[in-house]
Amino acid sequence: MFQDATKQEINEVMEKAWKAFHEYRKCSLKERAGFMRAIAVELEQCGDELIHTAMKETNLPEARLRNERGRTIFQLNQYADACEKGEWLEARIDTAIPDKNPPKPDIRKMQVPLGPVIVFGASNFPFAYSTAGGDTATAFAAGCPVVVKAHPAHPLTSNRVAEAILKAACDCKLPDGVFTHIHGASFEVGKALVMHPLTKAVGFTGSFLGGKALFDWANQRKEPIPVFSEMGSINPIFLLPGKLATDASAIAAMCAGSITLGVGQFCTNPGLIIGIESEALQTFVHDLGKAIKQIAPGNMLHPGIVKAYKEKKGEALLQEEVHLVAESEQAPSEVQGLPTLATATGAAFLSNPVLHQEVFGPYSIVIRCKDMEEMVTVAKKLEGQLTATLMATDSDITGNDELVEAIKNICGRFIINSVPTGVEVCLSMHHGGPFPASTDGRYTSVGADAIKRFVRPIAFQNWPKQLLPDELKDGNPLGIWRMVNGEVSKSGV
Amino acid sequence: MFQDATKQEINEVMEKAWKAFHEYRKCSLKERAGFMRAIAVELEQCGDELIHTAMKETNLPEARLRNERGRTIFQLNQYADACEKGEWLEARIDTAIPDKNPPKPDIRKMQVPLGPVIVFGASNFPFAYSTAGGDTATAFAAGCPVVVKAHPAHPLTSNRVAEAILKAACDCKLPDGVFTHIHGASFEVGKALVMHPLTKAVGFTGSFLGGKALFDWANQRKEPIPVFSEMGSINPIFLLPGKLATDASAIAAMCAGSITLGVGQFCTNPGLIIGIESEALQTFVHDLGKAIKQIAPGNMLHPGIVKAYKEKKGEALLQEEVHLVAESEQAPSEVQGLPTLATATGAAFLSNPVLHQEVFGPYSIVIRCKDMEEMVTVAKKLEGQLTATLMATDSDITGNDELVEAIKNICGRFIINSVPTGVEVCLSMHHGGPFPASTDGRYTSVGADAIKRFVRPIAFQNWPKQLLPDELKDGNPLGIWRMVNGEVSKSGV
Repeated sequence: MFQDATKQEINEVMEKAWKAFHEYRKCSLKERAGFMRAIAVELEQCGDELIHTAMKETNLPEARLRNERGRTIFQLNQYADACEKGEWLEARIDTAIPDKNPPKPDIRKMQVPLGPVIVFGASNFPFAYSTAGGDTATAFAAGCPVVVKAHPAHPLTSNRVAEAILKAACDCKLPDGVFTHIHGASFEVGKALVMHPLTKAVGFTGSFLGGKALFDWANQRKEPIPVFSEMGSINPIFLLPGKLATDASAIAAMCAGSITLGVGQFCTNPGLIIGIESEALQTFVHDLGKAIKQIAPGNMLHPGIVKAYKEKKGEALLQEEVHLVAESEQAPSEVQGLPTLATATGAAFLSNPVLHQEVFGPYSIVIRCKDMEEMVTVAKKLEGQLTATLMATDSDITGNDELVEAIKNICGRFIINSVPTGVEVCLSMHHGGPFPASTDGRYTSVGADAIKRFVRPIAFQNWPKQLLPDELKDGNPLGIWRMVNGEVSKSGV
Repeated sequence: MFQDATKQEINEVMEKAWKAFHEYRKCSLKERAGFMRAIAVELEQCGDELIHTAMKETNLPEARLRNERGRTIFQLNQYADACEKGEWLEARIDTAIPDKNPPKPDIRKMQVPLGPVIVFGASNFPFAYSTAGGDTATAFAAGCPVVVKAHPAHPLTSNRVAEAILKAACDCKLPDGVFTHIHGASFEVGKALVMHPLTKAVGFTGSFLGGKALFDWANQRKEPIPVFSEMGSINPIFLLPGKLATDASAIAAMCAGSITLGVGQFCTNPGLIIGIESEALQTFVHDLGKAIKQIAPGNMLHPGIVKAYKEKKGEALLQEEVHLVAESEQAPSEVQGLPTLATATGAAFLSNPVLHQEVFGPYSIVIRCKDMEEMVTVAKKLEGQLTATLMATDSDITGNDELVEAIKNICGRFIINSVPTGVEVCLSMHHGGPFPASTDGRYTSVGADAIKRFVRPIAFQNWPKQLLPDELKDGNPLGIWRMVNGEVSKSGV
């Protein structure tokens, strides 16, 4: 339906973005925030039509899509506020000490934008992590132009959102090239975008294979660039004995909801639950299986996702050591994913790498360890995860230090007695984990700290005071928090 | 003299460091800072013997080495203060809002250490960027164990400093493995260290070839890790017409000192000076040449560096378009670097990549552009640099926006009317530039922000308040600055 962008078109797009960069980065924080808020307004004004387009393209239900648009608007506004507040600028001022030997010069530092950012839309979040989603919003906050490659599963939705962004850019009198929207179903388009010398950073949400390919290309460039690929994970939940002994049924109910939320199509979906053989664990598995049976299958995003779910789940269930516990009792249609629960022993998990793989959909496996020692071994064997969860009493936590320490090594968000699905958009959120959950676990893709992905510092030494950026001027005209001679301050110098 | 570490030894070292990591990261900020300060005391107590060992191994003069040890001690103490102050922890607290729909959980985020860090000693800074230098100090502050590979040009110096660190670690009752010192002249040792699965980050100061090799290995790992290679640059100085018209001789004197400081063996050495053809530029070149003639050659670090200097300089001077302006009038000995000034036109610079290469030593080339347009073209053609300098009046700056913007794209530190040599150790410093000046221009290797290289965030969701790390506890027992519900605060929650 849409033509892939050609190499020549991509080159033109990047030249235009590079030119726009030099104008857009000079826009004040207020102007950038104004642009982001204008996009939020335009998104709202897309009205029902946008929701209906997205429903057709993604199979997602109307309520979910309305919620997700709301979240996208909330993100744009929250990141606009953060942009203006300027904490992400990490402004630092050390004033001169002329009579030191040798004299100490005046040095002031702040974050500046990297340059044009490529954003790859996500299939499972047509609004919140696609065209006007978190990556785009935070790149705009940082002062970077954005080139979005539409996800081929929802090109019309992406087009409509792109129109909204372009309208806002036009209303805000921003330079042509501050935002460009292109299509490309083939991997060549993605590669050409990442390899282009004027591309300075990449944001991606999707599969390991896709995200890792972008990372490898970026590191093979003459000038390597940062790639922020959020590639999902299996988000282990550890059931600790003290907690499980009293709350097995309640935890099972929580897990059933989290495993099947959004037909399991979240990167924080708990695909792995680890317990220790006991009566309480049997109760848990029984109750969770019972709940899974009663949850109806749901439409998945597109045929490719259904196919992958069936294949991955099939492969897992084919393993000799894996036993099916329960499937939804309602027969699925062609486009639906069937809620499924499996189980295996700790020994099986430790010896079979297939059981560590993500099965993207409403599937989870309960690993039955023979004792705490085996649970610790399982924790140590796990790869990097976006999240890890403990179902635990306080004494479960304090009494199992080795387990807690092992889990700290592998996760970006560490949850107690709750579920990993539901990623709050706030400054304290960290959505990113050690590799392979993301290509750079030092950065989050959710929350205003995501702005920091698209900046680098410049130190200004011995500059004439009146020519410094406003962020670093003596009088602090923007009223931002700064470190002045080692002390946090909003005062002037 | 020293045996290269074997693969088996390296594996044992890394296992020990990994074990130590789990204890050391639990040390309080105060304990880490105490360790760093104890190293500073031990370094001081190494007395004259350490200085004499370093003099023999590095050819550096006594005064310089005493200064550099002083700087190393200053760094350890300054970073210890920063460690305790905890600004680098980026502590954020968003408290729960139970009656929100859905309920907002309590989420708190802070930086945690990455794990064992490999530090490669630098040849040109036997103290400040080697065994107990900036990389080691900031890794300790972050909570990471360190494995130092001694630079083969000063192994005895490195050994002596390592003893001081181990003594401090022992006095502070830190776990075995918090610091390990190994030797390895072959690249295999470096590769094995970077490729080891328990290595979590790498710090390096040295050549492009060395730093880039580490970066490539790190990205070929199953789990890629960050590599902070500071690889030097040619640190362009732009002479703007207004300033040059009045201050040509004074600028020439500053440049002569900067080019030859420490026999030109600094990564911030200005190897490129760019002016516009004019009478003032002729005066500048004449005066700079005259000054260079009068500066005596100096002993370089080791025979390999002298050889490389002669070869690189020889290659530059062999280029048809390059003209020798001046050499020191004093004949050099075998181990000395001869101060040298060359010149070429802007057109020659633009067409010949040899002129863009770093010549590590007391050498610089003046590029004579035909007009401002050509100077802008030169600026746009430059690769990433640690520093860039403008010699300029205020109206030179405001009247040449395209040039200023082009320079912003390529540098980490932007200096007005001063010289790039002399890297102040302070929070506002940024020592790191866009690739190829360093492998990750988002991070500094000088100043307390260098701690941030060795950490990543973890978000704690819904944790029992009393089990949170002290950094995130309600009462703020450490008294650090935190972002609490979006506001900067030292108060409790």
